[in-house]
Amino acid sequence: MPFIAETSFHIRYAETDAMGVAHHASYIVWFEEGRSSYIRQRGTSYAALERSGYYLAVAEVNARYIKAAHYDNCITIRTWLEEIRSRTLTFAYEIVSEADETLATGKSKHVCLNHDGAVVKMPASWRGWLGIGEN
Amino acid sequence: MPFIAETSFHIRYAETDAMGVAHHASYIVWFEEGRSSYIRQRGTSYAALERSGYYLAVAEVNARYIKAAHYDNCITIRTWLEEIRSRTLTFAYEIVSEADETLATGKSKHVCLNHDGAVVKMPASWRGWLGIGEN
Amino acid sequence: MPFIAETSFHIRYAETDAMGVAHHASYIVWFEEGRSSYIRQRGTSYAALERSGYYLAVAEVNARYIKAAHYDNCITIRTWLEEIRSRTLTFAYEIVSEADETLATGKSKHVCLNHDGAVVKMPASWRGWLGIGEN
Amino acid sequence: MPFIAETSFHIRYAETDAMGVAHHASYIVWFEEGRSSYIRQRGTSYAALERSGYYLAVAEVNARYIKAAHYDNCITIRTWLEEIRSRTLTFAYEIVSEADETLATGKSKHVCLNHDGAVVKMPASWRGWLGIGEN
Repeated sequence: MPFIAETSFHIRYAETDAMGVAHHASYIVWFEEGRSSYIRQRGTSYAALERSGYYLAVAEVNARYIKAAHYDNCITIRTWLEEIRSRTLTFAYEIVSEADETLATGKSKHVCLNHDGAVVKMPASWRGWLGIGEN
Repeated sequence: MPFIAETSFHIRYAETDAMGVAHHASYIVWFEEGRSSYIRQRGTSYAALERSGYYLAVAEVNARYIKAAHYDNCITIRTWLEEIRSRTLTFAYEIVSEADETLATGKSKHVCLNHDGAVVKMPASWRGWLGIGEN
Repeated sequence: MPFIAETSFHIRYAETDAMGVAHHASYIVWFEEGRSSYIRQRGTSYAALERSGYYLAVAEVNARYIKAAHYDNCITIRTWLEEIRSRTLTFAYEIVSEADETLATGKSKHVCLNHDGAVVKMPASWRGWLGIGEN
Repeated sequence: MPFIAETSFHIRYAETDAMGVAHHASYIVWFEEGRSSYIRQRGTSYAALERSGYYLAVAEVNARYIKAAHYDNCITIRTWLEEIRSRTLTFAYEIVSEADETLATGKSKHVCLNHDGAVVKMPASWRGWLGIGEN
């Protein structure tokens, strides 16, 4: 079973749109906040990863919108690592309401870049938060 | 050949992130602006569609990021209708640089809702901008 | 002494810009989140206020940026009511770092509207969260 | 009379909120786009200014919201320089509807920083776009 990070917050008014619901691009930002929280919960931070000279560029993102969410709703993002390869990572997400209804699901694929923007292997120092090679 | 709408603008500073490039969620907003422009170029507007009591809710969105874009770059969004069904539409997008390099591609699937939020068939009055049934 | 609401969260990557710091428009969204939190901490929610048929439209906003903030920084928004009149409210804000350094200050003035968009007196039912008339 | 830059665009759906109007933080982004356009219309670009090693950090921003704006409205931002000092600039803005009604006004004060983040005098090379010292 993969590690699943959960992070919860209230939907902001700025994240809604004229349809009266959370705007679909807001979910992409929430997925990102799910990733940030995942990495923090694994004992480091994406800010620290960048300071070490490596970046995770977004190569693909997908979202399926199942049920609308509204301003002030407290939502939870569940984030886990679906695939780890030498140069790429895929995160998966589920966003649920307080009643644990699934509001949206998604995935994002990331490529590891060095400071010059070249695609490189993820450094060995990331094995800890990635949860690999610990046996 | 489908109708392809093109709309161009400069990337805003607010749309960049600390990696120095346009943030990946900005592209989702640009796709939406591509849709808005598509409908305007077809002689109506999404605002008018909503005023007639029908809404296009986003059911899915996908984006592939190919080449980074930067503040002040003038980009062009190409938008076309990839699939039209009775209750759903799929738009496809290509974002290109001034040098016509592909920066990103994507798709979004939309469901037609009425004012009560029920999934309904798209009204006959939309046939014009959808480019169907005109023969 | 006025009631001061505090709410803390991590700065999101999407809220940064190519200067490597939190974008100045993000603070305006954070002020709004400070207001939302203020109203929640006073026992109701802005969503409930809207459901009762009254709206707080933003009439003015001011921000002073004192020290830059960065991705993943945990910041705290302090929000209080600076002025209450029959039809308008002024909130004031201070955003501080984990080390309690002031990063930004600001104010926003709001006008009470009814469902038709007319400026009206704030309803008596708001006295509780406004902290007036309780003596 | 100062030079006044005008730039026009349609309000994006993502820029609206659940009140059915453009969200107040969107105007702050539009002011910024007004500045970008101002600098472009003066023959350079803010991107070029940054490449020369100088930055304009936002020190203050103010906005007054006069009339609501809606999705798909075509708005125009008028931007001009209100004050030029050795280390700071103040831009002023007016946002108008297609019918030339004033929707909002605002100002932003900026401080010139070098690459190390120190406050410095604006370089002589900026005199052209600032419109000073040309006599």
